[in-house]
Amino acid sequence: MKLARILRDGPDGPRPRIVAVDPEAGRATDLARAEQLRLERRGCTPATARRLADAHLPQDLAAGLGSPSYREDLERAAAEDPPDDAVLELDGARWLTPLDPPRFRDFMAFEQHFVSARAVRGNPVPDVLYTLPVYYKAGHLSLLAHEQTMEWPAYCEWMDYELELGFVVGGTGVDLTAEEAEQRLFGVTLLNDFSARDRQFEEVAGGLGPAKGKDFGTALGPWITTLDELDPLEISLAARVNGQLWSSGRSGSALWSAGELTAYLSTAEPLVPGELIGSGTVGGGCGLELGNRLVPGDVVELEGSGLGTLRTRLGEPRQLRWAPQERIPGQMVDGRRGIEPTPLAALRPDAPPPPVPRR
Amino acid sequence: MKLARILRDGPDGPRPRIVAVDPEAGRATDLARAEQLRLERRGCTPATARRLADAHLPQDLAAGLGSPSYREDLERAAAEDPPDDAVLELDGARWLTPLDPPRFRDFMAFEQHFVSARAVRGNPVPDVLYTLPVYYKAGHLSLLAHEQTMEWPAYCEWMDYELELGFVVGGTGVDLTAEEAEQRLFGVTLLNDFSARDRQFEEVAGGLGPAKGKDFGTALGPWITTLDELDPLEISLAARVNGQLWSSGRSGSALWSAGELTAYLSTAEPLVPGELIGSGTVGGGCGLELGNRLVPGDVVELEGSGLGTLRTRLGEPRQLRWAPQERIPGQMVDGRRGIEPTPLAALRPDAPPPPVPRR
Repeated sequence: MKLARILRDGPDGPRPRIVAVDPEAGRATDLARAEQLRLERRGCTPATARRLADAHLPQDLAAGLGSPSYREDLERAAAEDPPDDAVLELDGARWLTPLDPPRFRDFMAFEQHFVSARAVRGNPVPDVLYTLPVYYKAGHLSLLAHEQTMEWPAYCEWMDYELELGFVVGGTGVDLTAEEAEQRLFGVTLLNDFSARDRQFEEVAGGLGPAKGKDFGTALGPWITTLDELDPLEISLAARVNGQLWSSGRSGSALWSAGELTAYLSTAEPLVPGELIGSGTVGGGCGLELGNRLVPGDVVELEGSGLGTLRTRLGEPRQLRWAPQERIPGQMVDGRRGIEPTPLAALRPDAPPPPVPRR
Repeated sequence: MKLARILRDGPDGPRPRIVAVDPEAGRATDLARAEQLRLERRGCTPATARRLADAHLPQDLAAGLGSPSYREDLERAAAEDPPDDAVLELDGARWLTPLDPPRFRDFMAFEQHFVSARAVRGNPVPDVLYTLPVYYKAGHLSLLAHEQTMEWPAYCEWMDYELELGFVVGGTGVDLTAEEAEQRLFGVTLLNDFSARDRQFEEVAGGLGPAKGKDFGTALGPWITTLDELDPLEISLAARVNGQLWSSGRSGSALWSAGELTAYLSTAEPLVPGELIGSGTVGGGCGLELGNRLVPGDVVELEGSGLGTLRTRLGEPRQLRWAPQERIPGQMVDGRRGIEPTPLAALRPDAPPPPVPRR
């Protein structure tokens, strides 16, 4: 299945609807509507059919994924011969992100990317990138749909794209093994982790990771392909800027598998159905590695085998209305360093010895 | 108002309920129940009163804050002489976090903290901490309620607390000035940003900020005090470990005001009602600065004037079921560096010159 979300008009205004996409036919099926008519054909009253369809196929993939039978529910509705008013043309469709993920964590799992991105800037590769699958917490509330214009942040002079995969979690669980975690994955989609490189490099010097350098907008979609349809290690990927090929890569060149990334995320923190996992940028998958950058008006397309094309137009820079004023060091340091506590060794003679740094 | 959320039993099992807390009296009022009876007294049928109370006072503060009249709705219900079955004893209450925030971003706004924490480790203070209010995206899905036991992550040998304030956003808006942003703040609470220092220092070397070093659990509460009740620059703060005072500080010693922090967050990213903003650790407000650390079984209490006491007991270490295996450098670097794109200058002679690094 290829699951997307598009807007449909109704008496309460436009509403998001989850659809199964058939890209070759240029059509999509409104799944809750198909399910409703299926239930009516089986003898439900229209009101009951609507209530059951709403409960089993909510217009929010993350909510649906809270039930272990959701995939079955989707498949049953998609298998139905759809009634005419459940069939939609993709031409002119108003795409939404296929998902409103409750959380979004994004890795840096492609060695080729982090090696060449560091080389361009003359920085060494830190050891930890080989010992842990390092990630950052990304902007789950500022995702951009297919065909949506990205508003260019006022503080950015150096804009870049990043060619990534997005994995959608379909279950829950904590402290999983890689094998267990892989079973929790539901689908995969394209993810363009747009980056304001100037702000990113400025802020990461503070040690808290990227924030305003990344979170103004991340494109996701156009649809989620369920993992029974493809091998996540065999996805061919490409990025085009204004129709010109800039990047190409393959999903299997990551240091860590999707199952390993997901297992690491589940360590001490339960997975949440519908959360989004970014693979990190594929090798050569951004302008930073290529010595090039984006300008307002550019059209960036990501392409993936089985995943379609995710298109974003870059808008004009926003107006800067406010910016923080630089502070003078030493104004807020008053020599207080908390209360001197009794040393741990005195309080707790049985306490374990101080930890040894790993590297 | 002091707003909390506690569990109450019902025919569908225990349910979260939003209450107004009166700490001196040791009691709380169930606000939706009070509102329901208020509406009945004014002539609504019981079913209509319940429907209206549910709509105006949902059991989710973030949902309620989506309406600009929510504060008024809360105050009207809290002002009502509460019926007996809406009054709850705090003694033995099952506390939840006062909020399920849709997002949580945590700053490093106290100079005393970042100067002394860096000094302890022999690291210089980066310039950016004086030019931008740097923050990280924190664990909004792993918050711990007052009195909840923190499960100790298996990978941690060096546990620490962090004494912080949490600000709750009560409105929306994008690209706000500090004055405008301050008007969007709804309330303030205590926040204990527990930190697995060993994992934190290991992972931040990767440049993506803290992740597993922080997100296993952050305590929040016990209640949210609305900002009409106190001056956020005049809050006295303290941290006690097993009853012993370890840290004390004051909210006004931050480099940036809550309005400035919020304005920065709103830049190019709309605020979301109910999102949580961490102030960062107050000077001297963690064991790292004091040369001490926590062990399993410790009880950590944060205290704030007007904010009550937030208590957390540290549990025993979890079992490690899976860990990533170290990778050998160079295995996934194959020399591909994307497709060589036409340089920007050739494609776009009118493009602006390459950006100048700010520092």
